[in-house]
Amino acid sequence: MTERGGPDGASILQPGATIGILGGGQLGRMLALSAAHLGLHCHIYCPDAASPAFDVARQHTIAGYDDDAALARFARQCDVITYEFENVPAHTAATLSAHAAVYPGSKALGIAQDRLLEKNFLHELGLPVAPFHAVASLDDLRAALERICAPAVLKTRRFGYDGKGQFVIRQPTQAAEAWDAIGMQPAILEGFVDFSKEISVLIARGRDGKLAAYDPPENEHREQILRTSRVPARIDPAVAAKAVHIGRSIATALDYVGLLAVELFVAGETGLEALLVNEIAPRVHNSGHWTMDACLTSQFEQHIRAIAGWPLGTTARHSDVIMENLIGEDVTHWHDRLAEPHAGLHLYGKTDTRPGRKMGHVNHLTPLSGKSS
Amino acid sequence: MTERGGPDGASILQPGATIGILGGGQLGRMLALSAAHLGLHCHIYCPDAASPAFDVARQHTIAGYDDDAALARFARQCDVITYEFENVPAHTAATLSAHAAVYPGSKALGIAQDRLLEKNFLHELGLPVAPFHAVASLDDLRAALERICAPAVLKTRRFGYDGKGQFVIRQPTQAAEAWDAIGMQPAILEGFVDFSKEISVLIARGRDGKLAAYDPPENEHREQILRTSRVPARIDPAVAAKAVHIGRSIATALDYVGLLAVELFVAGETGLEALLVNEIAPRVHNSGHWTMDACLTSQFEQHIRAIAGWPLGTTARHSDVIMENLIGEDVTHWHDRLAEPHAGLHLYGKTDTRPGRKMGHVNHLTPLSGKSS
Repeated sequence: MTERGGPDGASILQPGATIGILGGGQLGRMLALSAAHLGLHCHIYCPDAASPAFDVARQHTIAGYDDDAALARFARQCDVITYEFENVPAHTAATLSAHAAVYPGSKALGIAQDRLLEKNFLHELGLPVAPFHAVASLDDLRAALERICAPAVLKTRRFGYDGKGQFVIRQPTQAAEAWDAIGMQPAILEGFVDFSKEISVLIARGRDGKLAAYDPPENEHREQILRTSRVPARIDPAVAAKAVHIGRSIATALDYVGLLAVELFVAGETGLEALLVNEIAPRVHNSGHWTMDACLTSQFEQHIRAIAGWPLGTTARHSDVIMENLIGEDVTHWHDRLAEPHAGLHLYGKTDTRPGRKMGHVNHLTPLSGKSS
Repeated sequence: MTERGGPDGASILQPGATIGILGGGQLGRMLALSAAHLGLHCHIYCPDAASPAFDVARQHTIAGYDDDAALARFARQCDVITYEFENVPAHTAATLSAHAAVYPGSKALGIAQDRLLEKNFLHELGLPVAPFHAVASLDDLRAALERICAPAVLKTRRFGYDGKGQFVIRQPTQAAEAWDAIGMQPAILEGFVDFSKEISVLIARGRDGKLAAYDPPENEHREQILRTSRVPARIDPAVAAKAVHIGRSIATALDYVGLLAVELFVAGETGLEALLVNEIAPRVHNSGHWTMDACLTSQFEQHIRAIAGWPLGTTARHSDVIMENLIGEDVTHWHDRLAEPHAGLHLYGKTDTRPGRKMGHVNHLTPLSGKSS
């Protein structure tokens, strides 16, 4: 199914090859659907027997990420392996790597899993980040609060997502409360950024080092969960171009293969906007779901192309778009969205509707307002 | 998974419902991929254990179309049933209908399976068709050739596709040869149409009777197999509008539910074009594959919406497009197509490449040249 010849020595996939995907949620599912359109098979690995991605893949394995035998068996059946979430344990990735190429690689994974390593990496690349300080104890936190004045955000170094593992410190007197709230884990304190907008860069890098970035979406969160992504973002095109340039630097420095998401804050007034890199996600990303209906090549297909060693597709848009997440009970409005003439509905096949759970999304298209980059 | 309330008394599907699909080839596969994006499950029924559609569906049944027990078991697990090919035996459709709604219905199926019934139906609707005559014997054929002069085409009434079961009679002296060639089966003789172009109408009809037609593609065949579909067709817009009007008449007269394809010949000179209906296909159609990349709602999603009792999607195009079929060894050029900047590649996951076998297709996009209908 594969032949040698990739620039990095790994195999270039042939149609009929098998892609292994760690994680069986909606991202794995949409990756598998894109892989199918390209004539590739998928094997999904997930501990959860009710994984929505299982329904659209030829094979699946239900086993834990610490089950070395199951991991090895899975990896031997795959031509290349990828993942839908960045908290893949290092031991899991290493076990898989013994049998098959894993993309994105261990450098991106290690950095994305640890906010301190991530911030250090970005800072050393010369990229703009909020002031930050490592925190390993309550004393550290108190010392950090003297350097980075409140308001500031205390974040666990590892396993935070959708606002979990974070505490906003408004007053220095809240130090102990904050330290308790995040479970007294290794953390970083970050200066609170009074941003006007959040945007993200979605950029793919092929095995040959070529890069392809989409237009950066403007993202709106509520209760720490992404609600909408709007493209084009309502920012100066020069700021968008600068954001893409930052994305290119990061992807190249990580020797990245696949689709990378970089979240950024836009701070300051119009005409004087400053960008700060918030965090990176070494995977397809919720803020890129608009590409499914507004571009010929979606972020999912782009990721598959990259990890397969194939040429990247176009990132041009044919439409303007607002992506609306369907969170929890939002999904009960599926029929209204279906009846909208220019809305693309995507439901994830999840059985249980729970508050905060991502159940689907809708891409609301309008004609292109200007030239796509 | 369903609730009563469709205008025809059948159930309106809810997300999580199961669609049964007879046939596991590329059309079934692409239907299943579209259904997955809408949060629906698929159960594929096909006698062939190597069916490409199995890879992207939650369930599959490997059994013959004459296996009543397997058909009943399958149907009881489905909320609605459809098919990817029109030669579903009437007995099979009846067995399934006892347990679940089957769309498109038996009227469309019966007419599309028999060229004589089909031509009579079209003729009685007042639609333009080539002269035709029923042929049940060699004597019939000789008599028919006196009324419909050569050149003419002898076609079996049933089970013809991609030019199989056809013989072009250039001289009346070829009657016996032609009758032998088609296996001495019930047939019709059709006047040979000296057409300048072939087009098709792709039209969906919902359970509520609402219609939605795509722009008619211009189709080029080689060795009786579709090679390219081009949209817009290089025809007078009035001719395109007339073709769509014909499609609407047929879909309505059949009380059709789903995506219907109508193939037409365009004969005569520019400005004086005449349309002749060639045949109808009660299913998604190869000449509609361009909708996957040039429209928000593909023909596959449209078919799923219709049979689910859901509102139809937009048929507007955002791009001009030429669909190129990858037949047999054409598929070896997959990598070149992948490297084209505005080409959408679709491979069907078939293991064996055989001459004449449909292995995939490519949609070559260019910016919209005019207003989409």
